[in-house]
Amino acid sequence: MPSLAIHRLPMAHPGDLSALAALIESGRLRAGDVRAVIGKTEGNGGLNDFTRGFFTQSLMLLLAAHTGEAAAALTARIPCVLSGGTEGALSPHYMVFSVAEATTAETGLALGTAFSPVMPNAAIGREAQIAAVAEAVQAAMADAGIARAADVALVQVKAPAGRGGDAAARTRDAKVLMALSRAAAAFGVGRALGDIAPAAAREEALLSDYALYSNRASISSGVEVVCNEVIVFGRAPGWVPGLTAGVAPMRDLLDLAGVQAAFAAAPGEVLGVIAKGEPDVSGRIRGHRHTMLGDTDIDAQRHLRGALGAIVAAVAGDGRVFVSGGAEHQGPPGGGLVCVFSRAV
Amino acid sequence: MPSLAIHRLPMAHPGDLSALAALIESGRLRAGDVRAVIGKTEGNGGLNDFTRGFFTQSLMLLLAAHTGEAAAALTARIPCVLSGGTEGALSPHYMVFSVAEATTAETGLALGTAFSPVMPNAAIGREAQIAAVAEAVQAAMADAGIARAADVALVQVKAPAGRGGDAAARTRDAKVLMALSRAAAAFGVGRALGDIAPAAAREEALLSDYALYSNRASISSGVEVVCNEVIVFGRAPGWVPGLTAGVAPMRDLLDLAGVQAAFAAAPGEVLGVIAKGEPDVSGRIRGHRHTMLGDTDIDAQRHLRGALGAIVAAVAGDGRVFVSGGAEHQGPPGGGLVCVFSRAV
Amino acid sequence: MPSLAIHRLPMAHPGDLSALAALIESGRLRAGDVRAVIGKTEGNGGLNDFTRGFFTQSLMLLLAAHTGEAAAALTARIPCVLSGGTEGALSPHYMVFSVAEATTAETGLALGTAFSPVMPNAAIGREAQIAAVAEAVQAAMADAGIARAADVALVQVKAPAGRGGDAAARTRDAKVLMALSRAAAAFGVGRALGDIAPAAAREEALLSDYALYSNRASISSGVEVVCNEVIVFGRAPGWVPGLTAGVAPMRDLLDLAGVQAAFAAAPGEVLGVIAKGEPDVSGRIRGHRHTMLGDTDIDAQRHLRGALGAIVAAVAGDGRVFVSGGAEHQGPPGGGLVCVFSRAV
Amino acid sequence: MPSLAIHRLPMAHPGDLSALAALIESGRLRAGDVRAVIGKTEGNGGLNDFTRGFFTQSLMLLLAAHTGEAAAALTARIPCVLSGGTEGALSPHYMVFSVAEATTAETGLALGTAFSPVMPNAAIGREAQIAAVAEAVQAAMADAGIARAADVALVQVKAPAGRGGDAAARTRDAKVLMALSRAAAAFGVGRALGDIAPAAAREEALLSDYALYSNRASISSGVEVVCNEVIVFGRAPGWVPGLTAGVAPMRDLLDLAGVQAAFAAAPGEVLGVIAKGEPDVSGRIRGHRHTMLGDTDIDAQRHLRGALGAIVAAVAGDGRVFVSGGAEHQGPPGGGLVCVFSRAV
Repeated sequence: MPSLAIHRLPMAHPGDLSALAALIESGRLRAGDVRAVIGKTEGNGGLNDFTRGFFTQSLMLLLAAHTGEAAAALTARIPCVLSGGTEGALSPHYMVFSVAEATTAETGLALGTAFSPVMPNAAIGREAQIAAVAEAVQAAMADAGIARAADVALVQVKAPAGRGGDAAARTRDAKVLMALSRAAAAFGVGRALGDIAPAAAREEALLSDYALYSNRASISSGVEVVCNEVIVFGRAPGWVPGLTAGVAPMRDLLDLAGVQAAFAAAPGEVLGVIAKGEPDVSGRIRGHRHTMLGDTDIDAQRHLRGALGAIVAAVAGDGRVFVSGGAEHQGPPGGGLVCVFSRAV
Repeated sequence: MPSLAIHRLPMAHPGDLSALAALIESGRLRAGDVRAVIGKTEGNGGLNDFTRGFFTQSLMLLLAAHTGEAAAALTARIPCVLSGGTEGALSPHYMVFSVAEATTAETGLALGTAFSPVMPNAAIGREAQIAAVAEAVQAAMADAGIARAADVALVQVKAPAGRGGDAAARTRDAKVLMALSRAAAAFGVGRALGDIAPAAAREEALLSDYALYSNRASISSGVEVVCNEVIVFGRAPGWVPGLTAGVAPMRDLLDLAGVQAAFAAAPGEVLGVIAKGEPDVSGRIRGHRHTMLGDTDIDAQRHLRGALGAIVAAVAGDGRVFVSGGAEHQGPPGGGLVCVFSRAV
Repeated sequence: MPSLAIHRLPMAHPGDLSALAALIESGRLRAGDVRAVIGKTEGNGGLNDFTRGFFTQSLMLLLAAHTGEAAAALTARIPCVLSGGTEGALSPHYMVFSVAEATTAETGLALGTAFSPVMPNAAIGREAQIAAVAEAVQAAMADAGIARAADVALVQVKAPAGRGGDAAARTRDAKVLMALSRAAAAFGVGRALGDIAPAAAREEALLSDYALYSNRASISSGVEVVCNEVIVFGRAPGWVPGLTAGVAPMRDLLDLAGVQAAFAAAPGEVLGVIAKGEPDVSGRIRGHRHTMLGDTDIDAQRHLRGALGAIVAAVAGDGRVFVSGGAEHQGPPGGGLVCVFSRAV
Repeated sequence: MPSLAIHRLPMAHPGDLSALAALIESGRLRAGDVRAVIGKTEGNGGLNDFTRGFFTQSLMLLLAAHTGEAAAALTARIPCVLSGGTEGALSPHYMVFSVAEATTAETGLALGTAFSPVMPNAAIGREAQIAAVAEAVQAAMADAGIARAADVALVQVKAPAGRGGDAAARTRDAKVLMALSRAAAAFGVGRALGDIAPAAAREEALLSDYALYSNRASISSGVEVVCNEVIVFGRAPGWVPGLTAGVAPMRDLLDLAGVQAAFAAAPGEVLGVIAKGEPDVSGRIRGHRHTMLGDTDIDAQRHLRGALGAIVAAVAGDGRVFVSGGAEHQGPPGGGLVCVFSRAV
């Protein structure tokens, strides 16, 4: 019955929604059909990156102007997952996922969304968050009509960063809390999909047992959200066919074959790319020392996005890649994963 | 008659020469045979990167202790080309090029070196520097016994950065002077090899006519040198065969095929890799906006090295790649070049 | 007849206008009375600082909700001068200048505003901009009812940054164009106030003859404005007395006495502070080398704001200081100026 | 009997010892009389700041050339305390403390040094380090002939940074380990001087009970040392009079009066200044939010040094101030301390 479309649009700056405005005004996209947005803004990707909030505010203002809904209501139903940082070869852009009514008996790429309840600061990186994300994944699967975990290609989550310096939080360190939030969301996805055994996916193992991971979880965290926003991609009956999501893990940062496998799994015209990765915490890649973790001047995640982004962009031949660091429990440790959306040609 | 060897060694920090010390002490390398060193240290690669000076001082102290020569004398005859900045996937390392006596009637990979006279600040980025580099390239070719420009694989130059804020200099801007120095050295190489028509390789075209470039020139500039230090690699009779240098241009930063072509041109065990590149000054790569040139917090060259380094390292499967930004007139504009050293296996 | 009020308000992030919202909702400030806003957001203060645009958008949305005017109309009549960068001891905050109706025969601190026409990119840093700013200063003086240049305490201008890489512009270098814009605006102020002789205040002297400056010009430039927004502070009859603006130049960055002189000139309760300064381009302060201009990792203006901001904040005993770098022709070269707003107690 | 001299010298870069070489060659300073060096180099002050190692290597080579001792022997007996980072108004420089033979019955400023045993990584930030530093302080006092703790003005320590990612260490986080090392050294000083009650100065309170501090402890940590190097300054009989060390705490970063008190306590010609401080961990200074701790692009200690350095330099009228961040348990929390060396005029 529904038909998913993906538009990949440029932005001149984080408050520039003119490409989407033009698309809506041309009649090619109905504002009311927008179901999710995933994008990369040119901030630093850290705690003091406000490009995400600026983009989100601008996006919701635009959609509000066209749908007549209040911006706050739109924010509460449309997941907007942004990752700051377009280091190196990366290009600022956003993918708009819209769903139009259509009738088909076939099976195609489906999208479902769900929002967890608001997470209090004390719940971040704890069992409460793991459980909330797992439930939201199931709700999003139901929303999409995806019956089996095996049919899920990717779960994208925007998790709350939490607030540093809070005695009630699991840690007072804002950066570590942000990492715990990503880790808990990854465990929630892993638990819902069966990629991590439910008994193993416990709070104590977060940021500790790196043998536990899901190759289908992509998590960002930011100060601009207060609940877990979940988007599920997968195959479901009743969706118009033609689009594919190909996913493959990367075993380390230099795993060119892994990147190529994701592209091979989604032949056709590339509509969008999502990649997650992280600086190997051992301080080495294939035996050779890297310096990402000890640089006082460039944040480790900025290093990572620049490197991973360039590799994926080189394979794609296109810098419009959503690359996000902080891949705790998302893909193999020290590696990550790549998801390619394409349209059959 | 001579035999070239390449050792690629790790460093724990920019003053750590223990790997070379061990090699010398083991008898596998004679300190007196060292002819050139090319390496990457973990500084920021800019004007205030002192890791290059620290490494050079440490290197010359070590060699002086073994050869009995004064450190200053060694510095004056052994080119030590360092590029600061091991962003992203890159690994700090250095390649030691040594030449031992041997007798052969065959043709192999040859190395020659030469130093230009000291460049006064006023000569940087001017005809005087272009001419001085062109002469030094010819001297280095003669030193190696390379008869024809066509047999040259790569010319690596370490050019003086010059001194900012000097009214006698071509510009008072230290960063622009550094770029002019690289550009002039590239023109010198291009003129000597015939890659740039002598009539075109003029001072006025530096940093201006980007249609002029050499695919075999790799230039670094730094405050730690006061003359142009030149290393030429190429094929020459009388050198023991077995080593190969494969070079290929990159047409833009995402030119994965270009990188792969360089590796294909040097089959066997990879002994070292040199890459040059630069952020496309148009602000776009294949039509998509990049943000390397306008980031207040991360220097454009640090962005570039992180991106280019990751692509080359992904193809090599190894982060020990000498990647240097500032590729003015070195390879196609917005692109660059890659040189791979290998040993037949 | 009018009465000027100054509110200095905190922000939790660049999109947080809750303090102003509370003030309006409490009835202590009428939204329609807001005449100008000057603030510091926690961005990097450079070309890719979008915290200024985010704040401006949020401010205008709030005022629009209360006044019923369109946000675009408000943006066109209320100067919003933001400087990114709260390095070191500085605290993100904004000053809201509002004018209420009142009747008095006395003389007090007056405020006037004016907007120049939109500046085409080719006009930035040229005579056209100098003239446009000079005219806008006169218009703002008339708006405030300030008759004589001698009665002007400070002119604050937000000038357009212009657009890099444009052949029609005076330079293709975006950063230099931004500096030229500040310089031209300073010349415009100096010309209007007689601080710089009209014959001397010419395009050729911009960023070149640093003996030309005004001790009453404070200029910011940013990509978020397209015309010159001018705010004039000074004494005028018919304004309710009680507020004072004290201004003093700083002869160099370490001129503690200069800072103290500005505070002494505005006794009472401090309501706000504006300071401009710049890294001495000679590379030295009182004979000793500084390193602000050659740091690859921290932008020179970020260094400057951290240092100048701390000195002014230490004298004020309060980190809420509007400090802006890029003081070309604003105060003595290598120095700058400080303006203190206070209320008699 | 001895006579202390302090020379404050400029450096053009971290390997430039030419000013000291000139002093020695002029006969004004005997190389053999050098007892300690305290300096600021223009690195980033963090884990990957190698300017300290470069300076130390260059210094010891110079002294070795003049004294005939091995560089390693000199390194083992001359404390060389370097702090990287000359942000803002700061100027790279070093203070050479030398002691010549002289005969006097008077009391003057004395200097004593001591080295603790090598600290294994597992001892860093633990009781073993606290005890080792306390013992070294007593040894340095004995070396200086300072009988009572009350006569000590300042204890400067260079503590080992330790090595990150080590399971045997108190933490795997290299940055936290570095902070623990500074904290333990401060506790050692506090215990030796009686500024912190011995019963309270325990391992568990490190980086936890900030009510415990010494106003006379100034600690740097760095990867270039493996033991605790201690320098004690104070008054002792038999030292030639004329020099003074004035010390005062800063209650917070904006404590201008505290800075002025230190200068007032050391009237005369200023020979050198040492300051310690830290970003207030509450995130606020006098009630206003600061942004030093959450900036992804500029390290918190770089922010701090730029701000504190500017305030102290403004009071001194001179950018040659040794400012070091990481003031855990050194002066009041959120504040720090200032020590001024002067000569009576």
